[in-house]
Amino acid sequence: MIKYVIIACFCLMSFVASKAQELKSPNGKFVLTFDLTTDGTPKYKLAFNGRIVIKPSKLGFEIEYGLPVAEDNRAADVAQRTVDPKASLFDNFTIIDTRTASFDESWTPVWGEVKTIRNHYNELAITLDQKTTNRQILIRFRLFNDGLGFRYEFPEQKNLTYFTIKEEITQFAMAGDHTAFWIPGDYDSQEYDYTTSRLSEIRNLMAKCKAENPLQTFFSPTGVQTSLMMKTADGLYINLHEAALVNYACMHLNLDDKNYVFQSWLTPDATGRKGQMQAPCTSPWRTILVSDDAREIIASKMIYNLNEPCKIKETSWIKPMKYMGVWWEMITGKSTWAYTNAYASVQLGVTDYKQAKPNGTHGATTANVKKYVDFAALHGFDAVLAEGWNVGWEDWFGNTKDHVFDFVTPYPDFNVEEIRDYAKSKGVKIIMHHETSGSIRNYERQIDTAYKFMKANGYDAVKSGYVGSILPLGEHHYSQWTVNHYQYAIEKAAEYHIMVNAHEAVRPTGIARTWPNLIGNESARGTEYQAFGGSKANHVTILPFTRLLGGPMDYTPGIFEMDVSKLNPANKSHVNSTIANQLALYVTMYSPLQMAADLPENYNRFPDAFQFIKDVAVDWEDSKYIEAEPGEYITVARKAKGTGNWFVGNVNGYNARNSTIAFDFLDEGRPYLATIYADAKNAHYKTNPQAYTIRKMVITNKSKLTQFSAPGGGYAISIIKADNAEIK
Amino acid sequence: MIKYVIIACFCLMSFVASKAQELKSPNGKFVLTFDLTTDGTPKYKLAFNGRIVIKPSKLGFEIEYGLPVAEDNRAADVAQRTVDPKASLFDNFTIIDTRTASFDESWTPVWGEVKTIRNHYNELAITLDQKTTNRQILIRFRLFNDGLGFRYEFPEQKNLTYFTIKEEITQFAMAGDHTAFWIPGDYDSQEYDYTTSRLSEIRNLMAKCKAENPLQTFFSPTGVQTSLMMKTADGLYINLHEAALVNYACMHLNLDDKNYVFQSWLTPDATGRKGQMQAPCTSPWRTILVSDDAREIIASKMIYNLNEPCKIKETSWIKPMKYMGVWWEMITGKSTWAYTNAYASVQLGVTDYKQAKPNGTHGATTANVKKYVDFAALHGFDAVLAEGWNVGWEDWFGNTKDHVFDFVTPYPDFNVEEIRDYAKSKGVKIIMHHETSGSIRNYERQIDTAYKFMKANGYDAVKSGYVGSILPLGEHHYSQWTVNHYQYAIEKAAEYHIMVNAHEAVRPTGIARTWPNLIGNESARGTEYQAFGGSKANHVTILPFTRLLGGPMDYTPGIFEMDVSKLNPANKSHVNSTIANQLALYVTMYSPLQMAADLPENYNRFPDAFQFIKDVAVDWEDSKYIEAEPGEYITVARKAKGTGNWFVGNVNGYNARNSTIAFDFLDEGRPYLATIYADAKNAHYKTNPQAYTIRKMVITNKSKLTQFSAPGGGYAISIIKADNAEIK
Repeated sequence: MIKYVIIACFCLMSFVASKAQELKSPNGKFVLTFDLTTDGTPKYKLAFNGRIVIKPSKLGFEIEYGLPVAEDNRAADVAQRTVDPKASLFDNFTIIDTRTASFDESWTPVWGEVKTIRNHYNELAITLDQKTTNRQILIRFRLFNDGLGFRYEFPEQKNLTYFTIKEEITQFAMAGDHTAFWIPGDYDSQEYDYTTSRLSEIRNLMAKCKAENPLQTFFSPTGVQTSLMMKTADGLYINLHEAALVNYACMHLNLDDKNYVFQSWLTPDATGRKGQMQAPCTSPWRTILVSDDAREIIASKMIYNLNEPCKIKETSWIKPMKYMGVWWEMITGKSTWAYTNAYASVQLGVTDYKQAKPNGTHGATTANVKKYVDFAALHGFDAVLAEGWNVGWEDWFGNTKDHVFDFVTPYPDFNVEEIRDYAKSKGVKIIMHHETSGSIRNYERQIDTAYKFMKANGYDAVKSGYVGSILPLGEHHYSQWTVNHYQYAIEKAAEYHIMVNAHEAVRPTGIARTWPNLIGNESARGTEYQAFGGSKANHVTILPFTRLLGGPMDYTPGIFEMDVSKLNPANKSHVNSTIANQLALYVTMYSPLQMAADLPENYNRFPDAFQFIKDVAVDWEDSKYIEAEPGEYITVARKAKGTGNWFVGNVNGYNARNSTIAFDFLDEGRPYLATIYADAKNAHYKTNPQAYTIRKMVITNKSKLTQFSAPGGGYAISIIKADNAEIK
Repeated sequence: MIKYVIIACFCLMSFVASKAQELKSPNGKFVLTFDLTTDGTPKYKLAFNGRIVIKPSKLGFEIEYGLPVAEDNRAADVAQRTVDPKASLFDNFTIIDTRTASFDESWTPVWGEVKTIRNHYNELAITLDQKTTNRQILIRFRLFNDGLGFRYEFPEQKNLTYFTIKEEITQFAMAGDHTAFWIPGDYDSQEYDYTTSRLSEIRNLMAKCKAENPLQTFFSPTGVQTSLMMKTADGLYINLHEAALVNYACMHLNLDDKNYVFQSWLTPDATGRKGQMQAPCTSPWRTILVSDDAREIIASKMIYNLNEPCKIKETSWIKPMKYMGVWWEMITGKSTWAYTNAYASVQLGVTDYKQAKPNGTHGATTANVKKYVDFAALHGFDAVLAEGWNVGWEDWFGNTKDHVFDFVTPYPDFNVEEIRDYAKSKGVKIIMHHETSGSIRNYERQIDTAYKFMKANGYDAVKSGYVGSILPLGEHHYSQWTVNHYQYAIEKAAEYHIMVNAHEAVRPTGIARTWPNLIGNESARGTEYQAFGGSKANHVTILPFTRLLGGPMDYTPGIFEMDVSKLNPANKSHVNSTIANQLALYVTMYSPLQMAADLPENYNRFPDAFQFIKDVAVDWEDSKYIEAEPGEYITVARKAKGTGNWFVGNVNGYNARNSTIAFDFLDEGRPYLATIYADAKNAHYKTNPQAYTIRKMVITNKSKLTQFSAPGGGYAISIIKADNAEIK
């Protein structure tokens, strides 16, 4: 149910072309100023609490625009079109119209950190006219109490219909050499550890970021990805990202490290072009969050607010889930996705798997999946994921194989019907897995068949993957073409009432407001990297400030055995986290889809710690960020929908620390039973990760807690309402 | 019914690596010699009647081959793979196996120029081993009485599984500066007039070929397309082409014009790579036809013989057709595909066409289509094509529009059901039109829906088109990716029992033996160009030697009004052909799909000439090429399936000419009624194209005819068996 409170104020103002336009946020703390330079270049700047946060920064586009098509339709095709030399959209403008409006509405997401989200902004829409070309663009600014969003709009008009973007010229001029939490700009991968450094140091540190991933496509020695988190020397927090990335190329930021100016750098197509546009159309929103309080950054819902309202009429089939899976055992190398080692390569529909000698290490067997189903049912989990269930894994990676998977043919040892019926009898769902290997045409050709197969066999949710070069070669994971594909898969899934968790897809930009069946993405460096050499111990204190602003992450936490060689002697990787930190992630790493990723046998070794994972909710009525510092710590408390119970999580960076938290979010005057799962005094993510304590305490909303967190550690607290309203 | 006569002889021979291998054709006229040079480079040469036709020519590949994937599947993705520096497949070979075989079988095509085709060849299969890399390739030669076909095979093997072709190195070293009938090598268009010149002149003449087409992608100043027709100074005819182009990039020929050596030049993908391969696999067949008699070139069935046998089990739904269409009126500009001029651009599913003001020039209206249906029914035609029936034509061309057509939504003035029922009541089929505008993902996303719509509405055949840049940009019309798409559309159509006539697709290579539902392609410069400025008057005397060797062409002849300005005053184009030439095309330009392309009113002006088009058959039991000279003339007689009637066609080039033909192909000792449609004495394609004579004569198989053909003219003869077996 959506409650609308709309205050609309339309003011049509005519201005002399050079008069600056100003917009304030509802609480007045932000001031946006828009102006044109003497040569008609649009610029904006942003101040917060009187301080300049964004110095005057350009706006606009370089475009390719062909001469009009002749009446007989025989004019040159776009590939040979004479490019109109007057085709810039970045100067020679005048302001011909400005309108302001205000908006204040609350809406209810299907799932989320909070039950209700307030969408409250002041808006300024400026129409610019380019006399030399008779073309117009509109720039729409929305200023919220947490930050600024703006986008370009291309109205329907005679002189600008079909055009190609050569580059978007949106600048974010920083006011100083801020500290940034960044990953390299890359057209194909987001799976990097964050580097924390000054802007001026990015260039020298970029080289260290290489060789992290099997597929990398850097574009600049100072190019970075969004969302980009920064902190200024005087304690301001700034985040740059985009919202509503639909039918457009994903934006990176390229830094001019002399002047500390970021400029948009879109992901190109195979020919170097950056977007095919048809007016009327819009760009995504470019977003700037600012606060002097880090908690307000990670609590911000501005990116969702800039997205279109939910387009799915009936949403009861969209359900948050806690799940387990036949996955970590393959990630660690204990078992394999592949069924046989008999073939160097396979041909779907030709290779006879029944003749193949099983390798004996195949993970997704009927028997093994049923064991996970048993464990999931015993401990109240909703679902079990099975990866490697389908033929084709023998040669799936790195071969640019077109017809790499068919999404419907199981291996001989994975009985679809038996597993379906068994899981159903136990009240557990099976989560489908569609690894596309980047062969997106192959996926699209079979996607209806694949989705129908899911519905016929009781699968309501699919984890999809895009590991490998996008085919056709030349396209990238974040180009317009491929972004269009991810959207196609999501929207088609909605038709089938299927939930999607897309790994290696483009980082989310709040699309899940419009399509809440997109219940997750990975699209960052997840838990799997702990088995690929380990991630930085403070990685999870940064991700909510960066990747999670655009949407939840299927981080797949819950690893209890940090020494991977215990699962696979050949794998010497170490999980850089304590058990308490792993528990806390279920609270700090918000997601409607949460995995208990370890093997049942490892949970059975620590059933008391595992209890927290069993108890923690996955859907929230309210969330309070208690304390937060990017790279250092995050502590958040969340109230579960329905039960009124609370859960607190703290994740900690490299420095051992005590946090002091107040439980003033609890209901007044009643007791709660708090179970605190914390690092032991001598715990350490590297040397002593499995040392934890569990304390049970009675608390009220007057209570306070000072709690120790080890390096790479944290704590998790379940807070259950006592059945007695007061202590008698 | 297929009759098999197989003589197989397998001989395993071991040779010292340097011993030349020899193969002869069944009649001994061809001798193929294969050898390795001292550095292990494979070479072949071909002699015909003792004369060298192909001088020693290299074979092989440049490939990209990455270092093997590591066991943990974490090796570099193909885009970053360290390229194996030893990855050549063009030298350092030794012969490790040779096998010979013979084959002699006859098979029956579903439709064709003849009822039965004999497939008779001697084969030599040579396995080469590259010691430096432990890789093997096999080259299979098949030598027929009409020429040579050979292909590369990559056996399943440990050291060569997934690899990228950088370039294929197949040479065709010509023995002299032959005369060639060529069009420029182009990754995106085949719609050129032929240039007739010496090989040495190609470079200087290439520049004249530009600006012919809206989309051109030249790659070399001496690059040409296949099939390439040549004539040597001493009267030998040579043709170079390929057969069975499936899952591979289309081959062009790049000429070293110092040495007259052609070398294969494959169509690249967006990154410049030329093919993604997975062993076991094969290349297409490279074909060399040779004869001292030009008629044997155009009569050759070698390219079909090199293709796989028919894969469609039940083929009764595949039927040759004579059709008319709402098409020429748009091509000439008399009417339009588009429905309205109210919109500069449209958005499918958003634009409300019911609100749009009709432009009054829309061709495919219910009323107009019904008129064509009436005319078709009256004159015994099987079908009517309607182009411009569906929404989206207002902005379809040259805009790289992704979602450009939906293939199911008609314009407000095209009533699908009414037309369907009306046509059915008249015994006429409607041919569907799917213009894809090169947006092939958009087509594939909707192709099942589109094919289902066809079946639901009585459409059995579709003309598809690929006018415009292939999307995503960077791919080409003839790259592996796009060739794969055309094949996908054909095979899926076969599932639906749909016949396909694909325009602007890759030129055919005999695929229709395997998939006889591919009843036609354009894929060359067709009749439409007569309305775009005109084609050379001898164009149709070259096409059967070039384009038609790989499959039939939907040339859409039958134009009676040569002055296009009579249809559209703004269009001053002239059809460079006489009426007699247009009639002859139904015989000389073999196709199971023949269009009477002009408007009914123009046929009504010449009903006596039109009678030939009504009478001519479209499916043949036998064909006799009576005389032929590329660029000059072709005369062929064909016997209709079933009736035993014969039809003769002659098309003539620039020089007025008399041909003398004997009717010795008729049955012995019975009379036939011949109706001869010929140029009047003063006819000329430019100045007097509509002057023709009609004579009715009684002939027998002893008769001879000396017949005049004007410049750009010809003659057509229908020969009907008299009902009396002998004259009494």
